[in-house]
Amino acid sequence: MTLRVGFIGYGFMGQAHANALARLPMFFPEAPETERHVLCGRNEERVAAAADRFGFSHTTDDWETLVHEVDVLYNLGPNDLHAEPTIAALENDVHVLCEKPLAKSLESAERMVEAAGESDAVAACAFNYRYVPALRLAKELIEQGALGQIRHVRGTYLVDWQANPDHPWVWRNNADRAGYGQVGDVGSHTIDLARWLVGEITDVSGRLATLVDERPTSDGEGTRPVTTDDIYLATASFESGAVGVFDGSSVASGHKATNAIEIIGSEGAVRFDLERLNELEVYDADRRGYERIVVTDEDDPYGHRWWPAGHTIGWEHTVVHENYEFLRAIDGESDNIVSFESALTVQRIIDAIVQSDDRGERVALETET
Amino acid sequence: MTLRVGFIGYGFMGQAHANALARLPMFFPEAPETERHVLCGRNEERVAAAADRFGFSHTTDDWETLVHEVDVLYNLGPNDLHAEPTIAALENDVHVLCEKPLAKSLESAERMVEAAGESDAVAACAFNYRYVPALRLAKELIEQGALGQIRHVRGTYLVDWQANPDHPWVWRNNADRAGYGQVGDVGSHTIDLARWLVGEITDVSGRLATLVDERPTSDGEGTRPVTTDDIYLATASFESGAVGVFDGSSVASGHKATNAIEIIGSEGAVRFDLERLNELEVYDADRRGYERIVVTDEDDPYGHRWWPAGHTIGWEHTVVHENYEFLRAIDGESDNIVSFESALTVQRIIDAIVQSDDRGERVALETET
Amino acid sequence: MTLRVGFIGYGFMGQAHANALARLPMFFPEAPETERHVLCGRNEERVAAAADRFGFSHTTDDWETLVHEVDVLYNLGPNDLHAEPTIAALENDVHVLCEKPLAKSLESAERMVEAAGESDAVAACAFNYRYVPALRLAKELIEQGALGQIRHVRGTYLVDWQANPDHPWVWRNNADRAGYGQVGDVGSHTIDLARWLVGEITDVSGRLATLVDERPTSDGEGTRPVTTDDIYLATASFESGAVGVFDGSSVASGHKATNAIEIIGSEGAVRFDLERLNELEVYDADRRGYERIVVTDEDDPYGHRWWPAGHTIGWEHTVVHENYEFLRAIDGESDNIVSFESALTVQRIIDAIVQSDDRGERVALETET
Amino acid sequence: MTLRVGFIGYGFMGQAHANALARLPMFFPEAPETERHVLCGRNEERVAAAADRFGFSHTTDDWETLVHEVDVLYNLGPNDLHAEPTIAALENDVHVLCEKPLAKSLESAERMVEAAGESDAVAACAFNYRYVPALRLAKELIEQGALGQIRHVRGTYLVDWQANPDHPWVWRNNADRAGYGQVGDVGSHTIDLARWLVGEITDVSGRLATLVDERPTSDGEGTRPVTTDDIYLATASFESGAVGVFDGSSVASGHKATNAIEIIGSEGAVRFDLERLNELEVYDADRRGYERIVVTDEDDPYGHRWWPAGHTIGWEHTVVHENYEFLRAIDGESDNIVSFESALTVQRIIDAIVQSDDRGERVALETET
Repeated sequence: MTLRVGFIGYGFMGQAHANALARLPMFFPEAPETERHVLCGRNEERVAAAADRFGFSHTTDDWETLVHEVDVLYNLGPNDLHAEPTIAALENDVHVLCEKPLAKSLESAERMVEAAGESDAVAACAFNYRYVPALRLAKELIEQGALGQIRHVRGTYLVDWQANPDHPWVWRNNADRAGYGQVGDVGSHTIDLARWLVGEITDVSGRLATLVDERPTSDGEGTRPVTTDDIYLATASFESGAVGVFDGSSVASGHKATNAIEIIGSEGAVRFDLERLNELEVYDADRRGYERIVVTDEDDPYGHRWWPAGHTIGWEHTVVHENYEFLRAIDGESDNIVSFESALTVQRIIDAIVQSDDRGERVALETET
Repeated sequence: MTLRVGFIGYGFMGQAHANALARLPMFFPEAPETERHVLCGRNEERVAAAADRFGFSHTTDDWETLVHEVDVLYNLGPNDLHAEPTIAALENDVHVLCEKPLAKSLESAERMVEAAGESDAVAACAFNYRYVPALRLAKELIEQGALGQIRHVRGTYLVDWQANPDHPWVWRNNADRAGYGQVGDVGSHTIDLARWLVGEITDVSGRLATLVDERPTSDGEGTRPVTTDDIYLATASFESGAVGVFDGSSVASGHKATNAIEIIGSEGAVRFDLERLNELEVYDADRRGYERIVVTDEDDPYGHRWWPAGHTIGWEHTVVHENYEFLRAIDGESDNIVSFESALTVQRIIDAIVQSDDRGERVALETET
Repeated sequence: MTLRVGFIGYGFMGQAHANALARLPMFFPEAPETERHVLCGRNEERVAAAADRFGFSHTTDDWETLVHEVDVLYNLGPNDLHAEPTIAALENDVHVLCEKPLAKSLESAERMVEAAGESDAVAACAFNYRYVPALRLAKELIEQGALGQIRHVRGTYLVDWQANPDHPWVWRNNADRAGYGQVGDVGSHTIDLARWLVGEITDVSGRLATLVDERPTSDGEGTRPVTTDDIYLATASFESGAVGVFDGSSVASGHKATNAIEIIGSEGAVRFDLERLNELEVYDADRRGYERIVVTDEDDPYGHRWWPAGHTIGWEHTVVHENYEFLRAIDGESDNIVSFESALTVQRIIDAIVQSDDRGERVALETET
Repeated sequence: MTLRVGFIGYGFMGQAHANALARLPMFFPEAPETERHVLCGRNEERVAAAADRFGFSHTTDDWETLVHEVDVLYNLGPNDLHAEPTIAALENDVHVLCEKPLAKSLESAERMVEAAGESDAVAACAFNYRYVPALRLAKELIEQGALGQIRHVRGTYLVDWQANPDHPWVWRNNADRAGYGQVGDVGSHTIDLARWLVGEITDVSGRLATLVDERPTSDGEGTRPVTTDDIYLATASFESGAVGVFDGSSVASGHKATNAIEIIGSEGAVRFDLERLNELEVYDADRRGYERIVVTDEDDPYGHRWWPAGHTIGWEHTVVHENYEFLRAIDGESDNIVSFESALTVQRIIDAIVQSDDRGERVALETET
């Protein structure tokens, strides 16, 4: 049976997921077949052009209809459009892959989790960096105990897309739409990776800053205030006794995509930087320094799917892997997805960072029991 | 009109080009439409499986028929199968993209050029690294004069796929089939890049070595002698007065794909390494050191085709770009291809390196007049 | 007039400063002349051997006498020996260079500052990384405005000397003697650099952890509890509006001396790592990426003192520069020293980090008025 | 007995060796005692100033007298002054440390070796990079067989001190004084390291180029022709079957001191770059990539002499180590020196590169029997 897929959103993420679906048959032939059925967006002309480009057969501007016409919903809209369409889809037992962070607010995220719990459909959140081969290799090393007891987690995500104060105001600068600034946008990735690799976080101290507090509107006629953070900083404790430090910024002059994480344990360490996503640096206490591994061997994670050793993959392949695991989960053949519960935990941590910044206090996280 | 395409070869290169063709509509919609028509190979079962995977509608084991059934031939076979099918195709005015090096011998390469000269079809050789965005940026910088007078060219290509002496004997270890060893396999890439970026080479001194002189056969029943080089070294002079040094190896322990080139001029310099293919290091004499550029901006070469800045591409994208330029050349809309004449010049240089090694002398190249 | 110098301490720091004094005449001939007069330590035999090696004419085990016999005191003892000898020396108008952190406790540090204020002697704290040429170049760039408005400060100091849990217990693991763990040992360096380069810190949130909570005694007969932190983490706000994140560890497997700082501003950025102390990476918003500068040119800070461009210096040269500036300050010819007041501010920040960790709250720093 | 030392030359190298002698007592107390006795140079005023700075008790402008007044001669003059004073010293059984390359011409070098052979004194050539701890570690690894059979040697030495065509003409640009250009200046270092680490070279192919063929005189009144090479390139075969590629330049824009060597074997590999002289990268075939080692541990070569792990040394320390080994050789306690015979072999290889360039032919080296 071919799964009919509908997308909300036709920008960068729309293209990334459309591309992923288009590439699965050649590289992951056992993935369920999909049909790019309907693309949803507000601007009729642009949606039509995108649908043509991305290989969708239909378009719509009405997500409420869409969720009745598809087997799978990809919710790729802005944060404030995550909850309602996702919940409606899940109520129809339509599978959902929702972009990160899970929602604009903790309350929305909780409702989404509840809907997922009551649905027979698969619900996953698109934390795509879990699907970087180098990071999966890191995960394997950690699970094998190669790092010993983990001590110190250092996660950072620095980008420069708004480094220039003249960069126009966008929805992410608006707390009413985005909910969070960089703590949600890049921070959610770092926190998801940290939890996935190291385990639960028990408390956080956060600090938010807005260094560029107004920006020109894109029509050039004025400025609008920036009501979200453009830099976040946090420290954290993990259940295991490890401690962590995180930071992220969208105004980090000189950085294109420094999504980096280092995990230091008693017996070894690993570090990674998305700008060099085919590489993992690994330290083993029996050696003297970090070893640079090009993670493209046939027996590396997803390695046999692509090209011979040394032939690198790019950012988009993380999305292909993510789509593969998500669609296989629909078939009951994979559990390598980020559940809504897991994404809600990330959201709780983000929220705790925001509250900690507000209150000037460390904030404990309730661990699920 | 949709171009019917036939491939000879269904291994690594077959998949790389099939993937490229499959990706063009979404990312390069103005490229001519293609149909993956027929896939040619000797093992019926494997060809059928590959055709299914790669999206070909037919298969054959007979390239002589194939060249009558297609508009475009991709010749992806071993070096000793480059000449005849290519010539037959060109005689039928079938366009040809032929893998590198152009041929197993200079004599074959010359016949291929002659056939291309007499054909109305487009003939291109698949030196895909010309299509790395970072290297195209290097080319632009050089053409703008940013490096001043070029002085020193340093090209290397080190891989480890046969570093282990137990790695089985393959056709590339056989002079009768491959024609050349690493001087042809990796050296041809380095020489093509050097010529493309810096200009004509006027003489070379070469040195070849075979460090592992026999290898086990893949059936495990014995060994066969290695009759091609596994390391080549060369120095060269360029018409412009620059000098160059090149080396390559397939037995370079520790190297996955160090395809690196550095070009040093009076006013600046650039350097590149395929293991980090999204990066170009640029030195400008007004500054103090090399600057690391992540070549993913919208206005970088091919940058607007893919993802926002900082979202890297992989090795396979070079093949997509190559296919785009080749197919556009068929439409008369691109001249960014590597002509057979150009590939023949590379072959002459390879051949001169081999002769220089044989004779222990510097060998001059006749420049075309 | 030759300055008679006395050292308390004859270990690593003793040798580093003795070497510095010995090297000044050849490289900094205008520095005041010094005589290595008396070396103080408890183990008579070892002190005698060290005095012979380091070029001291006398030894003592009594610092109270020493401070009457010298013009200059180098206090290189453990943290709990900083206050009394330093205060005694200053009361005698003996100049003091005291190792960092200034004292074992805030109370001691305050008394030292008071003594310095009432003395005619020069009092300096040995934060030697201010004298790394690359960091002085960073300072110059910042003062020239090359970074624009500073946004984000990222300071880290990771070492592995106690990464192995079997590494013996030392005085630094004892809160009673050291006062602080890594927040004082490596953290004080990071905080001093951050303040020096970026300006005053207004509040901090801190987190301390002791990952290895007991260690074998060096006599091999048992273990002792570790009562200081081995990892510290902090976030901070600067008066200028910038924010900062700091971390440090003595149990950082894989790191020899990652004393790194990155400062990101609206117009540029710099970053530095002590493991490559001759290098500064500089980003300028007019360019596209970080540029790697080898800071050994004749017109670089201290560059003309040493070797031609490209001939690197080592860690010890930072101590030579520090000694030069300190001794010149005695002559009234330099103000490039770290005053006790400045060191006290560092101590207040360290203390605030500790308190913040204790109380789970952000702690404000009173700015001096 | 204190050795009276005389230097010819008081520039960069004079200071480097004077500093080395001054530092030995504190760090290498078992080295023979030395007295900086007499400094020789032509400009009386400058020599006097330098002698004062470097700690020499006497000066002279007459090397013929000098060689009768000292126990040890440091010949630090230009290449054309290496032979006569060195031979005169050796005839007086005065020990000699002579800067590299050994001589201006092969004929002079041969006479120097002859004089050394007939003298009771120790004669050493100052190839200081043999005394970099990281390179001695490389040597140890190779001797232990950690690299297996060596296959591929890649040596380069790129500097930019004459990259600017306006950089004034100096004696090194004059074949009559320097004998060789970069093949002698930087090439001799690379060749010495390659031989030391890998063994004898049996033949070479060379290529020389002069990219900047005239330069302004330092008086600003005209230009003078450059009669030495500013870039050299070579390939080589080693007795062991390995092959090598070398290049060097003094006009390498963007490079301060890229004195790099990589040695690739069947079981491992090492690489080094002088700009990061405290680091060695090591690959072991049991691992997946190069490991970066900071070579400052106590049990690293010369490691216990200096500072605790992670506290790096600088370029000058290579000269200290060299002086230590040379002076200990006088005492009969070290054979870690570069003999004149060894330096002559380097000179023969340099000369063969020059001849190969002249004749356009590979040139064989007679191996000593």
